Amino acid sequence: MGMVGGGRNAFIGAVHRMAAWLDGKIDLVAGAFSSDPEKSKLSGADFHLAPERVYSDYQTMATSEAKLPKGERIDFVSIVTPNHAHFPVAKVFLEAGFNVVCDKPMTFNLDEAIQLRDLVRKTGKVFALTHNYTGYPMVKEAREMVRRGDLGRILKVVAEYPQGWLLDAIDAEGQKQASWRTDPSKAGASSCIGDIGTHAENLGRYISGLEIDELCADFTTFVQGRRLEDDGNLLVRYKGGARGILYASQVSAGEENDINARVYGTKASIEWHQERPDDLIVKYPDAPRRIFRRGNGYVSETAKRFTRLPSGHPEAFIEAFANIYAEAARAIAAEVQGKPIPGDVDFPTVDDGVMGMAFIATAVKSANEGSVWTKLVI
Amino acid sequence: MGMVGGGRNAFIGAVHRMAAWLDGKIDLVAGAFSSDPEKSKLSGADFHLAPERVYSDYQTMATSEAKLPKGERIDFVSIVTPNHAHFPVAKVFLEAGFNVVCDKPMTFNLDEAIQLRDLVRKTGKVFALTHNYTGYPMVKEAREMVRRGDLGRILKVVAEYPQGWLLDAIDAEGQKQASWRTDPSKAGASSCIGDIGTHAENLGRYISGLEIDELCADFTTFVQGRRLEDDGNLLVRYKGGARGILYASQVSAGEENDINARVYGTKASIEWHQERPDDLIVKYPDAPRRIFRRGNGYVSETAKRFTRLPSGHPEAFIEAFANIYAEAARAIAAEVQGKPIPGDVDFPTVDDGVMGMAFIATAVKSANEGSVWTKLVI
Amino acid sequence: MGMVGGGRNAFIGAVHRMAAWLDGKIDLVAGAFSSDPEKSKLSGADFHLAPERVYSDYQTMATSEAKLPKGERIDFVSIVTPNHAHFPVAKVFLEAGFNVVCDKPMTFNLDEAIQLRDLVRKTGKVFALTHNYTGYPMVKEAREMVRRGDLGRILKVVAEYPQGWLLDAIDAEGQKQASWRTDPSKAGASSCIGDIGTHAENLGRYISGLEIDELCADFTTFVQGRRLEDDGNLLVRYKGGARGILYASQVSAGEENDINARVYGTKASIEWHQERPDDLIVKYPDAPRRIFRRGNGYVSETAKRFTRLPSGHPEAFIEAFANIYAEAARAIAAEVQGKPIPGDVDFPTVDDGVMGMAFIATAVKSANEGSVWTKLVI
Amino acid sequence: MGMVGGGRNAFIGAVHRMAAWLDGKIDLVAGAFSSDPEKSKLSGADFHLAPERVYSDYQTMATSEAKLPKGERIDFVSIVTPNHAHFPVAKVFLEAGFNVVCDKPMTFNLDEAIQLRDLVRKTGKVFALTHNYTGYPMVKEAREMVRRGDLGRILKVVAEYPQGWLLDAIDAEGQKQASWRTDPSKAGASSCIGDIGTHAENLGRYISGLEIDELCADFTTFVQGRRLEDDGNLLVRYKGGARGILYASQVSAGEENDINARVYGTKASIEWHQERPDDLIVKYPDAPRRIFRRGNGYVSETAKRFTRLPSGHPEAFIEAFANIYAEAARAIAAEVQGKPIPGDVDFPTVDDGVMGMAFIATAVKSANEGSVWTKLVI
Repeated sequence: MGMVGGGRNAFIGAVHRMAAWLDGKIDLVAGAFSSDPEKSKLSGADFHLAPERVYSDYQTMATSEAKLPKGERIDFVSIVTPNHAHFPVAKVFLEAGFNVVCDKPMTFNLDEAIQLRDLVRKTGKVFALTHNYTGYPMVKEAREMVRRGDLGRILKVVAEYPQGWLLDAIDAEGQKQASWRTDPSKAGASSCIGDIGTHAENLGRYISGLEIDELCADFTTFVQGRRLEDDGNLLVRYKGGARGILYASQVSAGEENDINARVYGTKASIEWHQERPDDLIVKYPDAPRRIFRRGNGYVSETAKRFTRLPSGHPEAFIEAFANIYAEAARAIAAEVQGKPIPGDVDFPTVDDGVMGMAFIATAVKSANEGSVWTKLVI
Repeated sequence: MGMVGGGRNAFIGAVHRMAAWLDGKIDLVAGAFSSDPEKSKLSGADFHLAPERVYSDYQTMATSEAKLPKGERIDFVSIVTPNHAHFPVAKVFLEAGFNVVCDKPMTFNLDEAIQLRDLVRKTGKVFALTHNYTGYPMVKEAREMVRRGDLGRILKVVAEYPQGWLLDAIDAEGQKQASWRTDPSKAGASSCIGDIGTHAENLGRYISGLEIDELCADFTTFVQGRRLEDDGNLLVRYKGGARGILYASQVSAGEENDINARVYGTKASIEWHQERPDDLIVKYPDAPRRIFRRGNGYVSETAKRFTRLPSGHPEAFIEAFANIYAEAARAIAAEVQGKPIPGDVDFPTVDDGVMGMAFIATAVKSANEGSVWTKLVI
Repeated sequence: MGMVGGGRNAFIGAVHRMAAWLDGKIDLVAGAFSSDPEKSKLSGADFHLAPERVYSDYQTMATSEAKLPKGERIDFVSIVTPNHAHFPVAKVFLEAGFNVVCDKPMTFNLDEAIQLRDLVRKTGKVFALTHNYTGYPMVKEAREMVRRGDLGRILKVVAEYPQGWLLDAIDAEGQKQASWRTDPSKAGASSCIGDIGTHAENLGRYISGLEIDELCADFTTFVQGRRLEDDGNLLVRYKGGARGILYASQVSAGEENDINARVYGTKASIEWHQERPDDLIVKYPDAPRRIFRRGNGYVSETAKRFTRLPSGHPEAFIEAFANIYAEAARAIAAEVQGKPIPGDVDFPTVDDGVMGMAFIATAVKSANEGSVWTKLVI
Repeated sequence: MGMVGGGRNAFIGAVHRMAAWLDGKIDLVAGAFSSDPEKSKLSGADFHLAPERVYSDYQTMATSEAKLPKGERIDFVSIVTPNHAHFPVAKVFLEAGFNVVCDKPMTFNLDEAIQLRDLVRKTGKVFALTHNYTGYPMVKEAREMVRRGDLGRILKVVAEYPQGWLLDAIDAEGQKQASWRTDPSKAGASSCIGDIGTHAENLGRYISGLEIDELCADFTTFVQGRRLEDDGNLLVRYKGGARGILYASQVSAGEENDINARVYGTKASIEWHQERPDDLIVKYPDAPRRIFRRGNGYVSETAKRFTRLPSGHPEAFIEAFANIYAEAARAIAAEVQGKPIPGDVDFPTVDDGVMGMAFIATAVKSANEGSVWTKLVI
């Protein structure tokens, strides 16, 4: 693969690389790692790349790689830049004939998302979005339970993503991650909901299968001088009548990254937390609670397919992230070989990205208009 | 003490009696335990009362007890009837010169609550409301932490009370508890928020010290044919700028009574769950999480004062409930002896009851008008 | 009931009183609360006893109470003195015709225990020993599971009772509890195993139904100058081939009273902790873990019979202790009325006490002889 | 690196490869993956190796690789065969001039272990043993706490490794893993203690720094027909006076791989479980419990050095295993380049392996001689 963004010291780039390398099937062979050509070069050296495939900019990279013979050029590009660059980079590579793996949120705004979706459809290339939390085996087990009807009709979804890292004004102090994520020109119209609320939305939707009909969003910027919200609380009404609560915060003291979801049905309810990813708690009205644990014989074939280690040897974030890569790679391998994409590949697509951008846009609209109920329209 | 309501098989009456008896300082000596005189009589016999002090109705009880000489008559009445009878019973006893302990929600509606508050003020009697969750030592510790400023400025409160017992239409099938709690003529204008949402509101307010400015409530009746909501989700804006999420549900499969609260401040956050009442979890931006445990030397004097057992020997619901009784009893003992009420008594008052009824009324209004933001006005 | 020991500030006396009072069926009416007559008097006043029934010593109490007419005199005595006085007090009251509830360990040594057993059999009185942890509903559920064969054949028992309160030499500094518990003339031949190891043994035996065949005990006195062991680790071989690990410690920093047991069978295993008493965790080789929770419809009738509150409203130490009292009271009520003892009463008996004392004696013998394997012989 | 053992479907080989690949710095370039040359060949193809570097046996591999020019040949071999082959393979490669990473237990018996240690010393090559649990950042934090004196003097160590996978006679049924692990000719003199008890011993020693003086081991073979013990319980006396309990089981129904350790000191105690590897629980006599969490600014530099992801994004087994590889790789890189081994490298060495084999030998001896106390002598 090739990579755009993710140079030295970039957190998310390092995560993508570990996820790609874990199974020993994906190599990093080219990259434009930084908008600063010198930094890109140094990063390429860090990763032991051939110097001629470390590019000073992504346009050059797309053009040059496209000229290489099949089998030598990259099979796909991984885009790990700040949000505002996702769309232009993806566009260039798709048009140059490459498959794409892209970090979330998919684009800068909903309009770009729709353009990107149309482009993906037109080019027929594989496009995978790294909503990584859906890569956890027990999240997949949860989805299976809902699909099989174990929970009955879904009544309620509670999805939370609390963080505390922006409690101090580290963006104003120039911390790089914090700065661009709270900068409307780079992050888009939302910080907290755009960066992590969208994960909670995606997680809830992935498990429950429900789509949002309308929502009411209350955004707050608790840290003075910050330009985007750092806390967002939403009430949700799903199509079909279910209700939801969805919240994300970047100013919740001492919270790390415990994204979690509870889904309540007429027959049972489920609960999952990233801090204990191998556990899926199921509660019944009239039977003992059950803890389904990754890696056991009794879990679904789907959950088993995404498991590397025996039960009790914990798996975590990297494996989940690698599951997105592994599935995308299956699709990409087929695409590159001109074979049909396997029917059972399971990774977030450009359509998930459109939905995510529509969610963000709707939440921003609701919040801006006084937290009124607002329909989600694509 | 005397008791109105709470005859044989009544759940909450039995709880009040255990709470009153625990410390061996309160005796049950009189009662009108049921609107059915025969059942009242049998209940009195169960509790080994003198037959002449088992009354067929509460009016007779109030009149007869008032005629007994001081020292023989009851010091206070405990009201454990369905909601609609709270006010008339309390009124009769207050006017007959008795102190009152009353179950929550305080009255049938906000108007009655205000009348009751005025009557309590006029009579000068002690009135205690059994918002029992504030009786837990570690809830008191949480409040102390907020008061001392350990959390800094409070930014956010999340309070939940999920239950699952009304997931089936047991009210339609005639289960007694379920029937009156979902009957607007007995429970009032709300079931879920009125019965348990009000506990979550009270818990959040007790710990955080914050008062609600406005709220947006989404009520749902998931079980067909039920006349009041069985699920309520609220966004809250507190006076001073903090935000809140408050939800209660009676149709959350497999949930029991795990009322819980998280309070986030600029310096630290706290988390408490009824299912683990002896633990208070405190999270910091830059220090290890701490678990404060009841009964240890390092907790506040306040938490110690409400503790009976050494740390590690768990205390739970009954002790917390008994703490409300014990504190009310201190105030009542002073009142009966004509002494000033001790300044440090700590139990929910008629003012808490007014606030609770205002909360319920505001939530109902918001929900009824399309889940619009609605100011809480008393 | 009457009480011997348990005056002002005595921890365990207060616990016994709360446990007795909780259900409103047992009154404290007489006592010899202290070997200091003045302190006994003051304590009696604290508990609002008639002054003539507050005695200066237990012999006088036994004689005087025995002279009162049936119906006025106490139905049983509760013995809450230090260990060395259990036997003489029990003897006097049994011989005076009274039923007895006694704190553990039952006697000062095994010889006394056997004498006491013989005396109980001879007098035909009820004798209950407050191994309170077996009063927890989910411990009873665990026992039911073993009895029903849910676990298959039992292979292994792990029972632990870690405490940390004697980590400092508070006994040398004169802390009263600590002083007598580490004083061989009052506590007996063992401190740690005698005081809390015996609870772990009893808990393991109650749940598993297994009896110890032989054991190997390693005792350590970590705090200099202490006269009895403050840490004891045992390997156990049960009759029938199961194995066990049993340990108790009073010097485990930061441990409170989290007595716990794990029982492993060929079909399933169970785990219970006092810190989460309403949960019983069951693990299976090939099925999801289950959490059985007190108060639910799916638990056994036995567990239900010892439950006061709905599921989710936690019960804890006091209710478990009260369950011992309530069961003893059922037997005592029958005895007093000359009726047969109900067949299903469930409380620790004088035979459990003999077994406990034999366990302590065997552990002490093993430890003293160099931690050799030693048969438990009664 | 090259690999011996670990062909298709071998669990531990796959783990080693993922651990090696995770950071993108170690490539698999050669191997003798199976004693069956055909299977070795197929496995090599799975891993995309050059066919000429997939060898039919380890001797050929050592000889052939040694003939390759420096820079082309492997830098080290990873040995992931059953136990009995560890020593001969290690010997051949060490003598051929290669560094070695080896699975545990290090050898078939203590005698081989000592020979291997001498050989490592003689050749001056790097030898790393994959006691992977010591690779967890919070295990390293625990060790730092002990080293810094945060716990005071260590009094007691409790280390457990319960599993349930051998509860049924799957070895008799021919399951491959189970068969060799319970076969004395392949596993050595112990199954349960040799395979997993040694991990518990290593973990306890790594954290506490204590060495075993003597031990008393009770071994049981619960499954009929099995030739080695499937359950082992040990009492331990450490040099310096601390005490220990160490147990391992393969027949504990429903247990997965929750290896855990508790270490009690005079000032504080610590607790760590593999099932929640990012948490380190610290308990104090007189202060709230603390949960130290991986990835936070407040943990030691050592723990930080072994951390890849921000706090809250859980790390787990693979990262811990990769930490052993990464540290071994630092040492190996230095060795290959003729530089001195960095002083701060942190991985289990041949000396740890000798200690582990001595532990196993001593436990076997104690058990065989009737569970008598036996000195650990090397």
